Amino acid sequence: MSDDRIKMAHGAGGSLMRDLIGDVFVRGGGDDPDVVGPEAMEDGGAVRVGDRWLVTTADAHVVAPAFFPGGDIGRLAVCGTVNDLAMMGATAPLGLTITVVVEEGYGRDELRRIQASIDAACAEAGTRVLAGDTKVMGKGEVDGVVLSSAGFGFADRLVRDRGMRPGDRVIVSGSIGDHGLAVMSARHELGLGDQLRSDVAPLNGLVARVLEAVGADLVGLKDATRGGVSAVLHELADKNGAGVVLDDVALPISDAARAAGELLGVDPLVVANEGKAVLIVRPGAVDAALGALRAHPLGRDAACVGEVIADHAGRVIVDTGFGRRLLAEPRGEPLPRIC
Amino acid sequence: MSDDRIKMAHGAGGSLMRDLIGDVFVRGGGDDPDVVGPEAMEDGGAVRVGDRWLVTTADAHVVAPAFFPGGDIGRLAVCGTVNDLAMMGATAPLGLTITVVVEEGYGRDELRRIQASIDAACAEAGTRVLAGDTKVMGKGEVDGVVLSSAGFGFADRLVRDRGMRPGDRVIVSGSIGDHGLAVMSARHELGLGDQLRSDVAPLNGLVARVLEAVGADLVGLKDATRGGVSAVLHELADKNGAGVVLDDVALPISDAARAAGELLGVDPLVVANEGKAVLIVRPGAVDAALGALRAHPLGRDAACVGEVIADHAGRVIVDTGFGRRLLAEPRGEPLPRIC
Repeated sequence: MSDDRIKMAHGAGGSLMRDLIGDVFVRGGGDDPDVVGPEAMEDGGAVRVGDRWLVTTADAHVVAPAFFPGGDIGRLAVCGTVNDLAMMGATAPLGLTITVVVEEGYGRDELRRIQASIDAACAEAGTRVLAGDTKVMGKGEVDGVVLSSAGFGFADRLVRDRGMRPGDRVIVSGSIGDHGLAVMSARHELGLGDQLRSDVAPLNGLVARVLEAVGADLVGLKDATRGGVSAVLHELADKNGAGVVLDDVALPISDAARAAGELLGVDPLVVANEGKAVLIVRPGAVDAALGALRAHPLGRDAACVGEVIADHAGRVIVDTGFGRRLLAEPRGEPLPRIC
Repeated sequence: MSDDRIKMAHGAGGSLMRDLIGDVFVRGGGDDPDVVGPEAMEDGGAVRVGDRWLVTTADAHVVAPAFFPGGDIGRLAVCGTVNDLAMMGATAPLGLTITVVVEEGYGRDELRRIQASIDAACAEAGTRVLAGDTKVMGKGEVDGVVLSSAGFGFADRLVRDRGMRPGDRVIVSGSIGDHGLAVMSARHELGLGDQLRSDVAPLNGLVARVLEAVGADLVGLKDATRGGVSAVLHELADKNGAGVVLDDVALPISDAARAAGELLGVDPLVVANEGKAVLIVRPGAVDAALGALRAHPLGRDAACVGEVIADHAGRVIVDTGFGRRLLAEPRGEPLPRIC
């Protein structure tokens, strides 16, 4: 397939997707100090309103299967948007919108289950759906159901991607790889059953606690979705002209995720999470950040897993305890339609 | 197909879609005076922020073909969202989000053209895209490209659907049926060429002029998208427990739209517009409203086309000059994927 045609990997959260976005979707911009637009390549955009920032974000959701262990496409839509807002510092989302594109012949009961998940996830996150839209495509014109979610909320202070420097520490808010590996296991019927469940959850409450605890010492914050922790750290390393060293032994990975990753031949570091944040904090704030995270049900397994270094700019290095290896930047999520 | 499966007409803007939304997507709500949620069935939702309303809205776009005379899916996405915001009184949209779901193998050049349309329409409407997302589905898993747009903006005063009463007048901002008939003509290759073009345009500037001219005497405002002018008037008649009489002769319909409608066997009154508003105004404000509309390039053909009456609640009656006929409420847009 020639380069002027879209490939699966263009939607997979890695370097190919970043190239496509830069080439096609984001042209110019960035000259207004009161606007953070897509050219900033953050988790969302923002406009200044009075002395606050109004943050917004949007995601399309094409996960297959739409119902998976630990969640479904409705919960994913709410959490994806709530989490992107939280990653920019907007931890009290004012409202969401959700559009539904559904295939002719799809079950009304399945739509009801999705809507019930949306409502439940909104209640967990303390927000609501304010508006929506429904479109139907013919049989065979779309595979099942596609959701798109957007949302907005105020941030007193924007958390941006460009504040990290050598010496800062890397924290993950919990076990990694669960979402993507649970979806893949369900798709391939690996029979891991209840052991491996998606982590899909709204992180706004957790982030609010951390912001309260460490304030401006939190200098980087991203949810590790497509491309996983690896994609996030590569992006931060690239944006800040620094390197990152990860301590392999410190990475929280569940036995079930490790087993599924081995069966599927996929490194949990490059797999999408939907309820995990990567935090960059100043060294003096590590204990306070970990304390705040671990006091929250969604952050019990939080761990400090690495450090920012001055050399190897743009690279992520894994220290295995026996030696160091360079972590390749994911070109894309290893399997399609993971979120 | 049994009733528990989704049909094409469930996405078509008519009574079946309203039933589905009420049955599946909107459960409860409406008890918070500072929130206008989906249960209100307006063009969008809103939350009170200080002494203003922050209005939001969202639309999915599945139009086929994606490029049609007068526009494309990118222009449609921007205008659909800008117009829904304007219909609630938010005429200065702060920002939009757009998600793209694209089929593997789709052309990068087509995506570039869509993005150029998005940028141009944003410039016309005085707004910008703040964030977005791209997902790729496999060959045959989605037909071409699906966009979803959302947006937000402030309104000093919300324009709601429930203010009309007998004696009020019905105004349309210009010729009707052009968008849907242009898309259908392109799809069926009717060869009407340049004569019939979609009206897709951002109406926020036009609405701002009208609000300035007539203020609170504008008591109903909707863009006549899926289901056309008929669906909008049926919805307003139903919500307000009143009837509407339309003057057939006064309806602005272009010769090309009339010809296409006859060829396709479709009444322009039930066809989607993407750049036309239906306005309900107090009788004393008709001249001021028409003056403001006609002074704007997008409102030159504005016309007063009807009146609200006390009887025939929920019904729309067409006065042909020779007699009166009841206009059937559209169950759905006559052809799928029109927007």
